[in-house]
Amino acid sequence: MRMFRNDYSEGAAPEVLEALVRTNAEQHVGYTEGDDHCERARELIRAACGHDDVAVEFSIGGTSTNLVCIEGMTRGWEGVICTPEAHINTHETGAIAATGRSVLPTRDTDGFVSPAEAERVWRYQTGTGRHMTKPAVVYISNTTELGGVWSKERFDALCDWADERGLKVYLDGARLGSALTSPAAAGLTLEHIARRCAAFYLGGTKNGMLFGEAVVISDPALREAFPYLIKERGGLMAKGRLLGVQFEAAFERPADGGEAPFWRLARGANERAFRLRQGLLDLGFEAYGEAPSNQQFFSFEPKVAQRFADEAGCEVFQELPDGRLLTRFVCSWATTDDDVDEVLDLARSL
Amino acid sequence: MRMFRNDYSEGAAPEVLEALVRTNAEQHVGYTEGDDHCERARELIRAACGHDDVAVEFSIGGTSTNLVCIEGMTRGWEGVICTPEAHINTHETGAIAATGRSVLPTRDTDGFVSPAEAERVWRYQTGTGRHMTKPAVVYISNTTELGGVWSKERFDALCDWADERGLKVYLDGARLGSALTSPAAAGLTLEHIARRCAAFYLGGTKNGMLFGEAVVISDPALREAFPYLIKERGGLMAKGRLLGVQFEAAFERPADGGEAPFWRLARGANERAFRLRQGLLDLGFEAYGEAPSNQQFFSFEPKVAQRFADEAGCEVFQELPDGRLLTRFVCSWATTDDDVDEVLDLARSL
Amino acid sequence: MRMFRNDYSEGAAPEVLEALVRTNAEQHVGYTEGDDHCERARELIRAACGHDDVAVEFSIGGTSTNLVCIEGMTRGWEGVICTPEAHINTHETGAIAATGRSVLPTRDTDGFVSPAEAERVWRYQTGTGRHMTKPAVVYISNTTELGGVWSKERFDALCDWADERGLKVYLDGARLGSALTSPAAAGLTLEHIARRCAAFYLGGTKNGMLFGEAVVISDPALREAFPYLIKERGGLMAKGRLLGVQFEAAFERPADGGEAPFWRLARGANERAFRLRQGLLDLGFEAYGEAPSNQQFFSFEPKVAQRFADEAGCEVFQELPDGRLLTRFVCSWATTDDDVDEVLDLARSL
Amino acid sequence: MRMFRNDYSEGAAPEVLEALVRTNAEQHVGYTEGDDHCERARELIRAACGHDDVAVEFSIGGTSTNLVCIEGMTRGWEGVICTPEAHINTHETGAIAATGRSVLPTRDTDGFVSPAEAERVWRYQTGTGRHMTKPAVVYISNTTELGGVWSKERFDALCDWADERGLKVYLDGARLGSALTSPAAAGLTLEHIARRCAAFYLGGTKNGMLFGEAVVISDPALREAFPYLIKERGGLMAKGRLLGVQFEAAFERPADGGEAPFWRLARGANERAFRLRQGLLDLGFEAYGEAPSNQQFFSFEPKVAQRFADEAGCEVFQELPDGRLLTRFVCSWATTDDDVDEVLDLARSL
Repeated sequence: MRMFRNDYSEGAAPEVLEALVRTNAEQHVGYTEGDDHCERARELIRAACGHDDVAVEFSIGGTSTNLVCIEGMTRGWEGVICTPEAHINTHETGAIAATGRSVLPTRDTDGFVSPAEAERVWRYQTGTGRHMTKPAVVYISNTTELGGVWSKERFDALCDWADERGLKVYLDGARLGSALTSPAAAGLTLEHIARRCAAFYLGGTKNGMLFGEAVVISDPALREAFPYLIKERGGLMAKGRLLGVQFEAAFERPADGGEAPFWRLARGANERAFRLRQGLLDLGFEAYGEAPSNQQFFSFEPKVAQRFADEAGCEVFQELPDGRLLTRFVCSWATTDDDVDEVLDLARSL
Repeated sequence: MRMFRNDYSEGAAPEVLEALVRTNAEQHVGYTEGDDHCERARELIRAACGHDDVAVEFSIGGTSTNLVCIEGMTRGWEGVICTPEAHINTHETGAIAATGRSVLPTRDTDGFVSPAEAERVWRYQTGTGRHMTKPAVVYISNTTELGGVWSKERFDALCDWADERGLKVYLDGARLGSALTSPAAAGLTLEHIARRCAAFYLGGTKNGMLFGEAVVISDPALREAFPYLIKERGGLMAKGRLLGVQFEAAFERPADGGEAPFWRLARGANERAFRLRQGLLDLGFEAYGEAPSNQQFFSFEPKVAQRFADEAGCEVFQELPDGRLLTRFVCSWATTDDDVDEVLDLARSL
Repeated sequence: MRMFRNDYSEGAAPEVLEALVRTNAEQHVGYTEGDDHCERARELIRAACGHDDVAVEFSIGGTSTNLVCIEGMTRGWEGVICTPEAHINTHETGAIAATGRSVLPTRDTDGFVSPAEAERVWRYQTGTGRHMTKPAVVYISNTTELGGVWSKERFDALCDWADERGLKVYLDGARLGSALTSPAAAGLTLEHIARRCAAFYLGGTKNGMLFGEAVVISDPALREAFPYLIKERGGLMAKGRLLGVQFEAAFERPADGGEAPFWRLARGANERAFRLRQGLLDLGFEAYGEAPSNQQFFSFEPKVAQRFADEAGCEVFQELPDGRLLTRFVCSWATTDDDVDEVLDLARSL
Repeated sequence: MRMFRNDYSEGAAPEVLEALVRTNAEQHVGYTEGDDHCERARELIRAACGHDDVAVEFSIGGTSTNLVCIEGMTRGWEGVICTPEAHINTHETGAIAATGRSVLPTRDTDGFVSPAEAERVWRYQTGTGRHMTKPAVVYISNTTELGGVWSKERFDALCDWADERGLKVYLDGARLGSALTSPAAAGLTLEHIARRCAAFYLGGTKNGMLFGEAVVISDPALREAFPYLIKERGGLMAKGRLLGVQFEAAFERPADGGEAPFWRLARGANERAFRLRQGLLDLGFEAYGEAPSNQQFFSFEPKVAQRFADEAGCEVFQELPDGRLLTRFVCSWATTDDDVDEVLDLARSL
């Protein structure tokens, strides 16, 4: 049975792998500089963003991207507001602190930073002047760590607050493909994100590439900092064209005028996830929260959770107050309807 | 009227100032090395700790001490458990993050780190292996940021937990004089702290010195690290003898066999604080929490709080849920009974 | 004409690319943990090293590897001795300083750290106790930045010195394949390096892989640190199996009992480089220094250097005292005899 | 016999000590904020600088000042050009690297950064774009580590170069009193330094105070950064008024219209040093370099050097190529003509 553990458990989508093989014999100067693939990928991404005046950079993974961007947008005594579950506050081994910056979690519990909580943190941190870390950036994830999707309305409300307080908004887009192809985006588009965020990234690792993220930067401080910091922090690939080749393949629209693979692959992962969700709900299982994206959370009796873990590779996260276990299914570009149906067959047997 | 704002608002106690004047014409090599005063102070402090095998170092202030000790007891990916109100988590401008280490607050609300909360944080942080910051140190303050005093029982319970999990206990003793001369210490002694803590400091700045903290170190890693890190982080005084002279004056017992000034001054500050507390309680004002030390917290109607702020220099911290304002009075070695009575006169008039 | 600019200008060698394609549909947990390819690669590398008790880790590139290893082998006030041309002292944008550690260059001019110069630096740095950065690691490159190859005798002399002073030896093996297949190794073997170095890496990026380095660690401090630091510094690949798959392909010996690709590819690059060197010497051009490896340095009249730069993609480094320009040719696994002959044809025409 | 080891081996000058005693009973809010002494000292220093638009901050010592200023004037990938003997490159235990910044020494051998060497470093570091640390600040010391004094002409030549390249000039003024009261200043004034440096400090520790430096800042980035960084790095004194009181005493001109103590004390130290120099020269001893300030360097036969070390507390630095030993005498505000004559008597006997 296919493992529903994570979208990064897969290899590359066929069009991406094919591009890597096709270009393998080329020679390039390196470091994402001066090769046609990186330049073409930058052009395609800028066009998708609808802005010419953003910088597009490449990096090898989410943690590297997050630490370079946050370091580059802040100064030594500044910090970044986020939710308690934010990846930078949990699963990056203190990568932000390792750059000398502080992570300032809100008390939001649904995976979204709310203006009210951000304001509370901001007031607390700035109440005694220089004695406390000054918030300078708000970090959000789309989709969130709990599978949530930012609507345009919610996103604008936070950006409005940030504008008022002079903070920069940074969006971790490890699963931005899934977010923007979800109906829950409710009007939130790539163009709009590019207009309002100081920086964000389009995640390739979890959406059909072998590895790689494309970072879109408006913030002038980060535009200057990124090329240096990505090297200084060890995140600059010698064979930089590999990133260009993959993003070029992902954002080049097919000859038939269809959707670029980046969106098509993400949309497919969502569709499999919605099929899975509906199937489990129909069987009477209990979903945990809204997750209109390629991650689906359910709460199961411990024995049931264990079976899903053993047979479908699900991750079991934590015991809920009622003794049930929070369990996650992740669909990817590689998941098929048949894979989903196999899980539903298993579910039926439990 | 004397200001009850802070114990660091005062100058030096007479015996400390006199020692500085008396020794001013001496010449010394510097850097707390090889001068008689530092050596004598080290000897007196080791004797007070009842241990010969601890290192005694000097530093210029609390933040410098905390950041050097925590950096020296941890490695790059490790972190320090503390309460949300811990000085290192609030009023040190991200000094721990600036050394690359992470601060890991519990949800304790009373100023004390509880074993249960420490265990919860420890389990959470170690549940996914290398993906999260690993707790290596527990930071406690005595007195706490809320004026609390660690009893021997409470202290031992936390140390037992830390021993079991292999964490080091670090005690911020900015107000350790006040803590150990409080009846609430309930058997907790300097000897006992020196036996169980990896490191702690005896705060001079808030207890009668112009500046200075004496750091007592058992932890072998920190013993090696401290001399280098205190220099590298800019905390090593060229005229290091100034620290030795002051601590010598504070820990040398008087000819009549009485208590060393360090303890006498702290005990005096506590007594003034208890007199103030009782007086305010007698007048019907409402104390906020237990604070058996030189800091007293009361909740007042906003107008009343403002008068205490304006006339007695109190700090007003935050609005409580009932609309009253949390207000702090700090007594020091310099506070007299008359000073306290003036505040009580003011209180009577409100 | 093939570009002789750099060995990282190439794609992956056929056997490596084929392995990536072949395994693309597999699902894995990620992060180089618990997948068969990483485990098999570790086993093959351990066997090649002749030691069971070394840890084998993977990373994405040289700068990331260097900064994680040096941070993990040192403490905050320690530093690393190297030559002035060392990669960590020049082309890593201050990556070591960014981890808080100091780079301490010797005055060696030939690319090799000599015991005499290392001793001079060590004496200077330790002469005033804690006031100076303490050397803890010696960093060497094999091949060196100038194309040099460490002989067993030279290597042992430095290791003996380091042992005496209690320093750890770290070897940057970005081009270790080329070094160990060079006749100039003169008895230096992988087994011997694994026995004497605290840590080193086998460079894949410059020897036939898309990317990736295999880090071999004896040092207990680094063994514990590496898994955390590689994640904290953003160098841990989500699709970690990609590293395992490539190193497995590179170190698996062919069915016919021949040499593993890692060595065969490097040997081929050397052979092309020696052919090029001899050809240029035969034509009367002037080699710059000994470079018995896949990098060849020549000094040319400016006009000649420019032609090689324009047509063979050579890098021109600096003006030499005699006005000639130092120029580098790099051969790779992909360079053919025909490619070399084309350069020689060009040379003949100048 | 008085020790000629260092100017920081002394206590406070009488007028400074008296001010500390006189103000000891005052209460202040702390942290160099909102107390009359700090405000008055700032006013006096601004007036001495002839500029209203500079910020004046206080700190406790040279290393703390240097690391905060350099961190505050640079970004993560930037570095600071200085001489090899610069304090930041030698005796600060890697404090600049500990903030993540790189130290970039020139090859100047006389203690002064020359425009030619600075230019060489600048070209080298910027020749490969983002792959190398970018120089952003030039660090100079006045007096230099070798007792040299910057003339106006030399200073302007370096500042002109820095302006052209867009670098900031930072001046470590640990002994600026001695430098500006030396005839070798040759027109260099405090006003001129304040006009051309991005930041510099007036050293109190080595010129009659117990401790303390006054930092004068023009650079907008550092003006914003300093208050936060000095706290974050542990250099902010709780009893900040101690710094104000001392600098107020040092810069307040006496009622009789004479020179402020800061200059009078430094001038006195210079005069003692010149008397010592002339006396030793008259006795046939060999001076080492020009040192028109309170530090005098001589080269002696080893036996002679040892006697000066043993009896006059001189520091012996290194063996010179001719086998003689480089030996330093430091005079301070506390040195008297009689003290000098005692050394000369000793010299006569050798």
